[in-house]
Amino acid sequence: MRITVLAGGVGAARFLRGLRQAVPEAEITVIGNTGDDITLFGLRICPDLDTVMYTLGGGINEDQGWGRDGETFGIRAELAAYGASPDWFTLGDRDFATHILRSQLLAEGRPLSAVTEVLCRRWRPGVRLLPMSDDPVETHVVLAGPGGDRGGRPPRSQQGERRVVHFQEWWVRMHAETPAAQITASGADRARPAPGVLDAIGAADVVLFPPSNPVVSIGTILAVPGIRAAVAAKTVAAVSPIIGGSPVRGMADACLAAIGVDTSAAAVAAHYGPGLIDGWLVDDQDKATVDILGDDPALAGIEVRALPLYMRDLPATTAIARAALDLALELR
Amino acid sequence: MRITVLAGGVGAARFLRGLRQAVPEAEITVIGNTGDDITLFGLRICPDLDTVMYTLGGGINEDQGWGRDGETFGIRAELAAYGASPDWFTLGDRDFATHILRSQLLAEGRPLSAVTEVLCRRWRPGVRLLPMSDDPVETHVVLAGPGGDRGGRPPRSQQGERRVVHFQEWWVRMHAETPAAQITASGADRARPAPGVLDAIGAADVVLFPPSNPVVSIGTILAVPGIRAAVAAKTVAAVSPIIGGSPVRGMADACLAAIGVDTSAAAVAAHYGPGLIDGWLVDDQDKATVDILGDDPALAGIEVRALPLYMRDLPATTAIARAALDLALELR
Repeated sequence: MRITVLAGGVGAARFLRGLRQAVPEAEITVIGNTGDDITLFGLRICPDLDTVMYTLGGGINEDQGWGRDGETFGIRAELAAYGASPDWFTLGDRDFATHILRSQLLAEGRPLSAVTEVLCRRWRPGVRLLPMSDDPVETHVVLAGPGGDRGGRPPRSQQGERRVVHFQEWWVRMHAETPAAQITASGADRARPAPGVLDAIGAADVVLFPPSNPVVSIGTILAVPGIRAAVAAKTVAAVSPIIGGSPVRGMADACLAAIGVDTSAAAVAAHYGPGLIDGWLVDDQDKATVDILGDDPALAGIEVRALPLYMRDLPATTAIARAALDLALELR
Repeated sequence: MRITVLAGGVGAARFLRGLRQAVPEAEITVIGNTGDDITLFGLRICPDLDTVMYTLGGGINEDQGWGRDGETFGIRAELAAYGASPDWFTLGDRDFATHILRSQLLAEGRPLSAVTEVLCRRWRPGVRLLPMSDDPVETHVVLAGPGGDRGGRPPRSQQGERRVVHFQEWWVRMHAETPAAQITASGADRARPAPGVLDAIGAADVVLFPPSNPVVSIGTILAVPGIRAAVAAKTVAAVSPIIGGSPVRGMADACLAAIGVDTSAAAVAAHYGPGLIDGWLVDDQDKATVDILGDDPALAGIEVRALPLYMRDLPATTAIARAALDLALELR
């Protein structure tokens, strides 16, 4: 069986661990979001790809869900002593090694997909991990002005603060506390899917969306020309990242607000829409969503199923992945 | 008083610590060798500049004489786990931070001299540290063939081993055990002295050579067009790196052999010659050198002085630096 999964970071990585456990014999291809990628200190950092790679490869910091286990922070302290900026993005020494090697290989002219393959030779994640694109795509956030206006020309604050920031600056430095007026996938319109991406979608028996951020993870991947259409042509089951009106993890609500989507399982399903997804997994406490969607003729094509959706441990996560896969297989 | 010092690594750094102590009021400019510089893992590493910077800035590993104090080696272990090469050049995590920042600044288009200035803002070495050149110069070693031949076209070994290696590969990986047929400063003929270098030599009251390697440290600096002539025009006192027929540190004998110079204080003085140096400091046990040089009419211009020359501790090193300076001042 061939399964292709669109993946953000922590939520996707954990879901994938469950999926690998649920169907060890399946050929799983993971298409990772690279819109969160950032160059810091001259080094290329791919947080989502690394989170998937480290998690499936057994090198993740389990408590925080990202970064390396057994990490030290010598470099960070040194860079601070040099007065180098930024100081708001935490990178451990072990993690730095990945970025150093990746940057070296990229500088030698290899595309990110080939570099990711080299890195995965060490981690043996048990899936084929592809970046969504070898071309640069950066998620940018247009900050809402002092009055919280959304849309229109971004105003400059009185302090002259920049109004367009890299996603990581908004997410990590600002904790997404300043509302986003707009979130854009800069460069996506000119990006091409990485080698193997469209083939992996086309050849898949089913496509799954883990409970990743619908805007800056799944949404960014779908923004690469060709990917949305390829996905839409397949049977897709998606797992809601929203439980009981809140994101399970992270600040997806701040991203959804920027695109005018409510933070609810029903609203996210409607955002994806029946033209894209076929099945929608929600938590038991969101069973009402089933009725809401059932009543909306525009969403009538989405089959909704409810089950406990917190990925508390590997057995629970495996059950969720199994349910997503079963739903997709049923709907084929 | 203005003093300009040509510097290699450990020996120069320790000498400079003594010189700074001996004449705290002096304006000291250090012209550092960059022929040992190497790019590893895409990062630019300047061992000699860093050794001077860390030593004078209080960040050196005192026991080994190079590298950072309180070092950890997380990155090294990670790169090994990735199978990245080379594995023979030890870089600690703290040290990596310097190379990361340097490489970032170089990639932004700043010349090495400007980058070194930025790094020195943190370390406050108490001297002005200039690379000999902003242009790439790499010390290459032509390995002697199986028969130990020197000169001529470098043969290939039967195993297809490379016969021309970067200095660091010969020095660190091979421990200089394979004889060198030739040592070249690749690129030196096209290199220009870094901004400030010729001015610092021209404006100096005296120029000092610490007990650095005469071939791959001092020799490489002098190979940058314009520097030798500028130095020769000044009063120069040099400290012998050879005591009792052996290098005080390192494998200078292997370098001297490659250029056909004996490993003796007298031979090194003759190698520099009276056209370049005016004063020569030797260890008490090499007092015979005084007579040898005194007897050789070709070297009659070099004033030789003997004193205890092991830099055992800061007081001893300060006395040596003071003696070198006094000798130069006398000979002006």
